Amino acid sequence: MAKGILIVVSAPAGCGKDTILEQALKADPNLYYSVSATSRAMRPGETDGVSYYFKTRDEFKRMIAEGELLEYTEYVGNYYGTPKKAVNDMLEAGKDVILKIEIEGAANVKKMFPGCTMVFILPPSFAELERRLHKRGTETDEVIKQRLETARKELQYAENYDYLITNAALEDAVDDFLAVVRAEKCRRENREGVVGDLLAE
Amino acid sequence: MAKGILIVVSAPAGCGKDTILEQALKADPNLYYSVSATSRAMRPGETDGVSYYFKTRDEFKRMIAEGELLEYTEYVGNYYGTPKKAVNDMLEAGKDVILKIEIEGAANVKKMFPGCTMVFILPPSFAELERRLHKRGTETDEVIKQRLETARKELQYAENYDYLITNAALEDAVDDFLAVVRAEKCRRENREGVVGDLLAE
Repeated sequence: MAKGILIVVSAPAGCGKDTILEQALKADPNLYYSVSATSRAMRPGETDGVSYYFKTRDEFKRMIAEGELLEYTEYVGNYYGTPKKAVNDMLEAGKDVILKIEIEGAANVKKMFPGCTMVFILPPSFAELERRLHKRGTETDEVIKQRLETARKELQYAENYDYLITNAALEDAVDDFLAVVRAEKCRRENREGVVGDLLAE
Repeated sequence: MAKGILIVVSAPAGCGKDTILEQALKADPNLYYSVSATSRAMRPGETDGVSYYFKTRDEFKRMIAEGELLEYTEYVGNYYGTPKKAVNDMLEAGKDVILKIEIEGAANVKKMFPGCTMVFILPPSFAELERRLHKRGTETDEVIKQRLETARKELQYAENYDYLITNAALEDAVDDFLAVVRAEKCRRENREGVVGDLLAE
């Protein structure tokens, strides 16, 4: 069986990446979502082991020390990281693994897996992004202002990504994402040996 | 409006590229198929202006002399070429243009349009390719033997292509092709200016 591909997804807060990935995972049973670990507080509606593995700072530091993380980073005062074992096991089993990580972590993964597929999700506009953050209703105006500023900074790293998907209409963005995964599996680099096998016939 | 993308498709005879492209064109109305010109004889079931623009050798030579072709090549004793004007007009109009050309012509187009998307269609096996060529019933055993040898040679150029699509089941191959087109339109190189426009807001 061919190994799975590794897809790194980043997006500023409020761009809808969670919803896009949720729908994509429903549509493509070969996708596996790698749940990240974090030391940040659980938000309303989140579930431990689904949204994130929620850890204390001390627990997180132990995972770092014992080499259990593929990458980790500190972001807005909290740790975020990717547990290593599940990712490797799933790739070996032929699953296509999604890592949802912020730009710094994404850059670290790219160094370790140069062949990974990097996807950045864009808002249709900053006006719409602000509207969505307000609608979410989980952050204060001050935090929203900070998130918009962070979004502007993050967008400057979009040029490090292979694909830019604009989330204007959710369904289109989901279809774009699914197409990226399907197309990447057809890329020559991800079909190693296929021509050699044919010619050896 | 964003410019369309240029998709170059090559495949050994009998790999089903015509059927794949026909179905893809039905499914995606933004695709435009660039009809090639050729000096080869029309085959049963072919239509002038649809399958190819059928030209005499002299007519073809005039087109070459007057610079009307994007690329042309001689293949198994016949001329094949791509009329230039329609391709440029359609790309400007935002259409995604498909060029179905053999490997030499494809390499020439790649030189002129380094950003074009190169797709190679593979047979599931040589045994199956041979079966399909016999089933087609348009060539003698001798010609089929020659085509299989040509196919082996062509496959060695597959490494110059961005995507390798195996036509084992037609529907899957069509979906792969459509995914490649959709994903390519999300590639950063094909979304020039999108981040800058957002940041300028």
